[in-house]
Amino acid sequence: MTAEQLERLLRDVRAGRLSIADAVERLRALPFEDLGFAKVDTHRALRTGFPEVIYCQGKTPEQIVEIARRIRARHHVTLATRCSAEAYEAAKQSFDDVAWHETPRIMVIGKPRRAPQRSRPVAVVTAGTADLPVAEEAAVTAETMGSRVERIYDVGVAGLHRLLGHRVKLQRARAIIVVAGMEGALASVVGGLVSAPVVAVPTSVGYGASFEGLSALLTMLNSCAAGVVVVNIDNGFGAGYFAALLVRGQRKR
Amino acid sequence: MTAEQLERLLRDVRAGRLSIADAVERLRALPFEDLGFAKVDTHRALRTGFPEVIYCQGKTPEQIVEIARRIRARHHVTLATRCSAEAYEAAKQSFDDVAWHETPRIMVIGKPRRAPQRSRPVAVVTAGTADLPVAEEAAVTAETMGSRVERIYDVGVAGLHRLLGHRVKLQRARAIIVVAGMEGALASVVGGLVSAPVVAVPTSVGYGASFEGLSALLTMLNSCAAGVVVVNIDNGFGAGYFAALLVRGQRKR
Amino acid sequence: MTAEQLERLLRDVRAGRLSIADAVERLRALPFEDLGFAKVDTHRALRTGFPEVIYCQGKTPEQIVEIARRIRARHHVTLATRCSAEAYEAAKQSFDDVAWHETPRIMVIGKPRRAPQRSRPVAVVTAGTADLPVAEEAAVTAETMGSRVERIYDVGVAGLHRLLGHRVKLQRARAIIVVAGMEGALASVVGGLVSAPVVAVPTSVGYGASFEGLSALLTMLNSCAAGVVVVNIDNGFGAGYFAALLVRGQRKR
Amino acid sequence: MTAEQLERLLRDVRAGRLSIADAVERLRALPFEDLGFAKVDTHRALRTGFPEVIYCQGKTPEQIVEIARRIRARHHVTLATRCSAEAYEAAKQSFDDVAWHETPRIMVIGKPRRAPQRSRPVAVVTAGTADLPVAEEAAVTAETMGSRVERIYDVGVAGLHRLLGHRVKLQRARAIIVVAGMEGALASVVGGLVSAPVVAVPTSVGYGASFEGLSALLTMLNSCAAGVVVVNIDNGFGAGYFAALLVRGQRKR
Amino acid sequence: MTAEQLERLLRDVRAGRLSIADAVERLRALPFEDLGFAKVDTHRALRTGFPEVIYCQGKTPEQIVEIARRIRARHHVTLATRCSAEAYEAAKQSFDDVAWHETPRIMVIGKPRRAPQRSRPVAVVTAGTADLPVAEEAAVTAETMGSRVERIYDVGVAGLHRLLGHRVKLQRARAIIVVAGMEGALASVVGGLVSAPVVAVPTSVGYGASFEGLSALLTMLNSCAAGVVVVNIDNGFGAGYFAALLVRGQRKR
Amino acid sequence: MTAEQLERLLRDVRAGRLSIADAVERLRALPFEDLGFAKVDTHRALRTGFPEVIYCQGKTPEQIVEIARRIRARHHVTLATRCSAEAYEAAKQSFDDVAWHETPRIMVIGKPRRAPQRSRPVAVVTAGTADLPVAEEAAVTAETMGSRVERIYDVGVAGLHRLLGHRVKLQRARAIIVVAGMEGALASVVGGLVSAPVVAVPTSVGYGASFEGLSALLTMLNSCAAGVVVVNIDNGFGAGYFAALLVRGQRKR
Amino acid sequence: MTAEQLERLLRDVRAGRLSIADAVERLRALPFEDLGFAKVDTHRALRTGFPEVIYCQGKTPEQIVEIARRIRARHHVTLATRCSAEAYEAAKQSFDDVAWHETPRIMVIGKPRRAPQRSRPVAVVTAGTADLPVAEEAAVTAETMGSRVERIYDVGVAGLHRLLGHRVKLQRARAIIVVAGMEGALASVVGGLVSAPVVAVPTSVGYGASFEGLSALLTMLNSCAAGVVVVNIDNGFGAGYFAALLVRGQRKR
Amino acid sequence: MTAEQLERLLRDVRAGRLSIADAVERLRALPFEDLGFAKVDTHRALRTGFPEVIYCQGKTPEQIVEIARRIRARHHVTLATRCSAEAYEAAKQSFDDVAWHETPRIMVIGKPRRAPQRSRPVAVVTAGTADLPVAEEAAVTAETMGSRVERIYDVGVAGLHRLLGHRVKLQRARAIIVVAGMEGALASVVGGLVSAPVVAVPTSVGYGASFEGLSALLTMLNSCAAGVVVVNIDNGFGAGYFAALLVRGQRKR
Repeated sequence: MTAEQLERLLRDVRAGRLSIADAVERLRALPFEDLGFAKVDTHRALRTGFPEVIYCQGKTPEQIVEIARRIRARHHVTLATRCSAEAYEAAKQSFDDVAWHETPRIMVIGKPRRAPQRSRPVAVVTAGTADLPVAEEAAVTAETMGSRVERIYDVGVAGLHRLLGHRVKLQRARAIIVVAGMEGALASVVGGLVSAPVVAVPTSVGYGASFEGLSALLTMLNSCAAGVVVVNIDNGFGAGYFAALLVRGQRKR
Repeated sequence: MTAEQLERLLRDVRAGRLSIADAVERLRALPFEDLGFAKVDTHRALRTGFPEVIYCQGKTPEQIVEIARRIRARHHVTLATRCSAEAYEAAKQSFDDVAWHETPRIMVIGKPRRAPQRSRPVAVVTAGTADLPVAEEAAVTAETMGSRVERIYDVGVAGLHRLLGHRVKLQRARAIIVVAGMEGALASVVGGLVSAPVVAVPTSVGYGASFEGLSALLTMLNSCAAGVVVVNIDNGFGAGYFAALLVRGQRKR
Repeated sequence: MTAEQLERLLRDVRAGRLSIADAVERLRALPFEDLGFAKVDTHRALRTGFPEVIYCQGKTPEQIVEIARRIRARHHVTLATRCSAEAYEAAKQSFDDVAWHETPRIMVIGKPRRAPQRSRPVAVVTAGTADLPVAEEAAVTAETMGSRVERIYDVGVAGLHRLLGHRVKLQRARAIIVVAGMEGALASVVGGLVSAPVVAVPTSVGYGASFEGLSALLTMLNSCAAGVVVVNIDNGFGAGYFAALLVRGQRKR
Repeated sequence: MTAEQLERLLRDVRAGRLSIADAVERLRALPFEDLGFAKVDTHRALRTGFPEVIYCQGKTPEQIVEIARRIRARHHVTLATRCSAEAYEAAKQSFDDVAWHETPRIMVIGKPRRAPQRSRPVAVVTAGTADLPVAEEAAVTAETMGSRVERIYDVGVAGLHRLLGHRVKLQRARAIIVVAGMEGALASVVGGLVSAPVVAVPTSVGYGASFEGLSALLTMLNSCAAGVVVVNIDNGFGAGYFAALLVRGQRKR
Repeated sequence: MTAEQLERLLRDVRAGRLSIADAVERLRALPFEDLGFAKVDTHRALRTGFPEVIYCQGKTPEQIVEIARRIRARHHVTLATRCSAEAYEAAKQSFDDVAWHETPRIMVIGKPRRAPQRSRPVAVVTAGTADLPVAEEAAVTAETMGSRVERIYDVGVAGLHRLLGHRVKLQRARAIIVVAGMEGALASVVGGLVSAPVVAVPTSVGYGASFEGLSALLTMLNSCAAGVVVVNIDNGFGAGYFAALLVRGQRKR
Repeated sequence: MTAEQLERLLRDVRAGRLSIADAVERLRALPFEDLGFAKVDTHRALRTGFPEVIYCQGKTPEQIVEIARRIRARHHVTLATRCSAEAYEAAKQSFDDVAWHETPRIMVIGKPRRAPQRSRPVAVVTAGTADLPVAEEAAVTAETMGSRVERIYDVGVAGLHRLLGHRVKLQRARAIIVVAGMEGALASVVGGLVSAPVVAVPTSVGYGASFEGLSALLTMLNSCAAGVVVVNIDNGFGAGYFAALLVRGQRKR
Repeated sequence: MTAEQLERLLRDVRAGRLSIADAVERLRALPFEDLGFAKVDTHRALRTGFPEVIYCQGKTPEQIVEIARRIRARHHVTLATRCSAEAYEAAKQSFDDVAWHETPRIMVIGKPRRAPQRSRPVAVVTAGTADLPVAEEAAVTAETMGSRVERIYDVGVAGLHRLLGHRVKLQRARAIIVVAGMEGALASVVGGLVSAPVVAVPTSVGYGASFEGLSALLTMLNSCAAGVVVVNIDNGFGAGYFAALLVRGQRKR
Repeated sequence: MTAEQLERLLRDVRAGRLSIADAVERLRALPFEDLGFAKVDTHRALRTGFPEVIYCQGKTPEQIVEIARRIRARHHVTLATRCSAEAYEAAKQSFDDVAWHETPRIMVIGKPRRAPQRSRPVAVVTAGTADLPVAEEAAVTAETMGSRVERIYDVGVAGLHRLLGHRVKLQRARAIIVVAGMEGALASVVGGLVSAPVVAVPTSVGYGASFEGLSALLTMLNSCAAGVVVVNIDNGFGAGYFAALLVRGQRKR
């Protein structure tokens, strides 16, 4: 509820257009609908600028479709992450405009706003081929949120020239998402090369003492390059979402 | 070295204005000066957009002053973090325009660019009073880098109304730095309230099973609110630097 | 054995109604029956106020039924947690009054005492939909132990207004069980809103650096809100049991 | 703000006794005072039932006295934990009724309500002599909050008969706080003996693989006895506060 | 090689019965046979007093049978732990006197020496039913090594009287093996009750913060009762073997 | 209380020599004295075979002397570990027969029983010079408890021949205590060489990834040699005490 | 690009044989080919001395074959680790000279250079039979890279004489790879016996507190023997590769 | 004892020049001297190729001097690491040719062999200035052991061009020691650039989630570049010693 809405309500009270009991009720009422198994947060777009995202893990296809329906009733686009093929099949029955991204297992319902052609892109960079699913989760999320994305894959530090060959593209980016497992050194190296903010995503790719991504996570948190921040292990969605927030801000003013 | 400089060099070679041996030399030479104990990275400003920052821990006052002198020779402002009072006293002998921030132990040499009056600020939010030194490290860093900063301190989730009382200010911010120790829940709560990107800084404030900041770090990495990224424990500088990068981008276009 | 029983026994010795050998025997005998594979603790109800609960993991349906039979011989109600559908099917052959709760996988044999209609309830609060099985384990346990339960589900801190909309219900509760995974911040926020004691249950819901519930566990242990205690990861039973003990005390005096 | 206050405010608006602008302001204003370095949460007593407690670590004596003054202005009693002797000396200059507990380093300003003579007590039990400071922090906190406390110290499981000798006292307690370091087994043993809820406090007492209290913490979280909850390592205050909440509830109805 | 054998060899050299080259060879030759995939340590019985034990995990039934054959060629009894039913079936083809213990998955080939009837036994004590496989691994190992074993199962500290009912048996034991998962408090309680040495075996039984046995392991290492030592998680074999060494010593003198 | 004492008591009740009230009282009374700050466990010698040991850390010299006095009133020898020079000075004022071991910081009050001349000794073996204080804590404890001790110091595996040179002594020992920090490999090597039971003591000697003894602790718990058990990091006392229990048993039969 | 190539390029520019635009382009071009899903690093052999190795985990047989084809186009031998039988079957269709090593799951395409007959070998030593797959990964890697390999398997420290029997072979080796799980003590013992550099490979063989290889890893990092270095858990490839680099260096001069 | 010595001994036995008793004695005697507090391993040079190194931590100056004296009696050079200034002062009284390296706190007694002028050097590379003491420990150790050392300091990945500027020097090295704290990414980057074997040394330089070097350690263990091995945190000595072994081998053949 904005200050303006509050003011209007109070004016209605003063004018007698609204009973005091109703006003108390409305001031307390908070804007969500109750489906029984999940509360849909329909005002989140107003509050945070994007529609609610459905994290599908642990939800049945029916639940996912039902939640999606409520969100779609008010929004032009809905994003469902960690989504199974079954849920996608179920959604196709209910929605006309549903798209499926297999590598990152993301379903998009509705038509995302297209990014302005000449806007500075978000670069998504990976160390190895095995980091692709996480990288694509980041890339598709950012695109769905309206950002332009430039993919630069398989440029890990073991062959530094592969990365240096993309230096110009990196310099052009408005923000860079670095996705790396094993020792995760790529984030520091990219952070030292560019002036754009870097969002680092540790992945659980690796073996032995990588401890399911802990190694890359610690590497990235301790990066000697300033301008590097970190999200949770394998959290491509979080990185893509953050980058989209960051980029959007740039167009606003 | 930019593409233009490279082109010019090659033209000079063709024109015979530059010998091949000299050209080889110059193509290999990389732009840093060698002080013996530390290599000053004078081109960093070109490459990342900001002057090099001096991390003072483990350096003598004399070393700090000497490094600062080299940086100042080319830049209008230099930042020294984790800086002792002794180093500040030493610097005062050498520089006219040195300022000292006691709480975050930051020294600034030179005059930082002032932030545009009406630009959207970076909000720096803390959970408790003990988080202040880290918060101020973030705030002063961002200000020195040219951002406007809004401080909102001591609004931890144990008294939620204190935070909610600042909701408007939070909504106005271009980016929000949340500084919290103990369980670090503030980052998630702020992340759910606003549409701005949130940079979370776990602090080592706490006792027992806070394990020197590990608890807050894990909390923030696992935040259920999208749009939250994390820096190292107590790394106020890193958060301030990142926020300044983020904000600056906004003005560029 | 109470002081009164002891006194009576000694009187019988003095009166010659009980031989010394028998008295030695009875003083040493401790009240449990031996099934070979498990010792049933039939006096536990006297000692701790509730019948023994069967933790089914790692026990065969036959063993579960046999243990239940012994307990039922002396008690009006028996609770079996982490119970498989097979064990339930087996129990239905042996008992008339067996009920099955699918989500938390709890079997109840016998008729639990109904909670007094107007007693202050135990509120069970969850952050997300995935926390439901643990929450229901807590809720059904508390109900079986004679507490009234109020369920408030899916009110995580990413959408704070969802929680605030239930503030009145929370204030009314005699005790609150907060069930949350990921970063577990909900416990601190609830703890700051209410005057009732809060029992926090970290769940293993999450990914990456949630480390199977470690993140939420540390968050809850470090809660900046006073009045919050913690049980083991996913231990809904423990929280429900504790809350029932807490509530029951209130009626006693 | 209660529903009644809200109603009254709206009535004033309708009656024209309050301007709309002022009403908006008051609806937004949240009840705290700003001291610059810390926000005093004067309404906490209404919200959680107890005055705010001052956690002294990292605050100067002057700050502590100033915060205490604000709290005392509205409350009859204030508690300051982890308080230095210096802060106590400073407080003696400003308050007449300040008391000092040396072992737990707690300062109490004002006169705590006395516990009803015949109410069931909170038992505070320790494994060893070294656990005393934490145990006293729990005991004094609970007493200041109005609970009767029974101390049972140095009854660790290495000499089980010492504990069994206190069985009657334990059975009488309304709640039991178990304070133990090293392997922390006492919590499970007490939990199996009694029907009262048990709040376990792991302490950092121990050496080697006790890892500063981690061993006792894990022991207590994994207690095989139902009815045991846990607070942070060395958090005597948290246990005492929780026990007081639990006991008070019993008197309310 | 014993001193006597060495002396004899040297005498043979002096007497010319043994060439120098052969003597060098024999002094270097160490007593093991090479099967290609594993070196059988046939002298271990002389060196450590017991035949080599086959740890079956990761070996094929054929390999196990082959190794067993070599050991049996020189020893009256062979023990195979973590042994699959398949390996047992294969062994039955090759040996007449093979026995199979299903719960601990141990195979014994040959006839173990029987323990002297009136020797003081090794007591094997468990906290719960789920600890049985580990306990039986300990018990069968000790029995095969020639110890008398007394089993006392399911006497965890949540019902202390169950344990106290066995106090006499415990006092009689020459050594006690305590097998417990979850919080593992049983080892400390037993250690405080008896004068016999206690070998504690943490098990991976538990959930949540038991972290696959880490909780019980730390508990046992930090036991406040003197006279308690610890083996690896789930290492029933190690405890039984150690206890047998301990007991055997007693008969030697 | 033994069965005989219990019988006698009951006979006195029957004979009217003891009132029922007194009998109830005596059956409940447990044999410890209360000093206020610590409960002395004077019956422990009966129960576990050795007098109570005073763990001095965190106790004042006065407390130590007072506890020692109570123990000495009933026992011929008392042991105080982790004892400061100050406590020793204080004890000298009160006792005639007090001895001080500087390296392990142990104080012995009274005259320990001397070990039988020809009994098989406990060997105490260390990897390096820095392990000496822990080793001496083990050795002096075992000697005070009546064991003969053989010291074999500085024979770490980096120079294996040093250890092999002592093979005969090792073979002769009734039990072996291996004290080692860093990687702690010595325990496995000794365990493979001998038939005596091995008690391994990890020490906190080391640096970097030894993590204060964690490395040696894990090494010893995972020993590939059977017959090795482990005590807490730096717990020389625990190892010496256990070895003495083990050896004593041997003489009993 | 070597200095000579650079010089030639500049001469071409001066001579007008190369346009400036083309020169800029060539100076920037970095030598890799782009397959879309992976960047083949064809110059790695020049840079590091060996062809790129294909880490097969997470790649499809088709991708593996395609990458191998590109590498083979320029190199005489290619190595594929963690390779499935399916990928091998696929490769057989495309290459004539493909070999398959089942135990370490390595595929070799092309003919490795044979090691000089009398060169000092790399010894590969294992503690137990279960360490074989990792050991063979090391051995086959080193052989493919041109080293002579000597295998010494199943010589763990529990039977020290097995190792000592191979002392001469160990002394002859140019480098030694020690592969061990459980407590990993073998690395220290070998390190103390020989003068050759030792590369230690911890394996995940073990149970309980071996924590998937962590125990052996810490042991090896803390080795008291100088001259021991460590690679990641189960990283046989890394050890073999490093040993080959080390040995090759020896022939170069 | 070599095979030749053994042969000679046996010949003496045959010839009657040596009694059997003496031969037994000599065959058992192992070559070390006993100083009481430490066993000097005077044959280590024969066995491992270098004199024993004195690790000074925890030894008194007198002990250090005494040990050094024994080693010097047989060797031309002795190395003492982690050596205090006091020990150096004490050593100056006893030895003429003692040198002191302040940064790494190493004392060298005697004249190290000089490295051949044109041998390929060991390069020692650091990420930052704070890594110097560890790097110098590596460098001085390698030099004392007879290697030529090339120092390349302060070339961390945050300014990649600083490192690339030294590419030629790196390519020339026979082995490279990379010393880095914080995230330790430098090891991977160097490993990808060169063909020489890389020994990585994690340092405890860093803060927050660097956890005293754990972050850099994990990074280096998980390096995506082949040819990288790791030593313990801050273990400059270990790296230098290993590199010297590696280089020496190269000259041998």
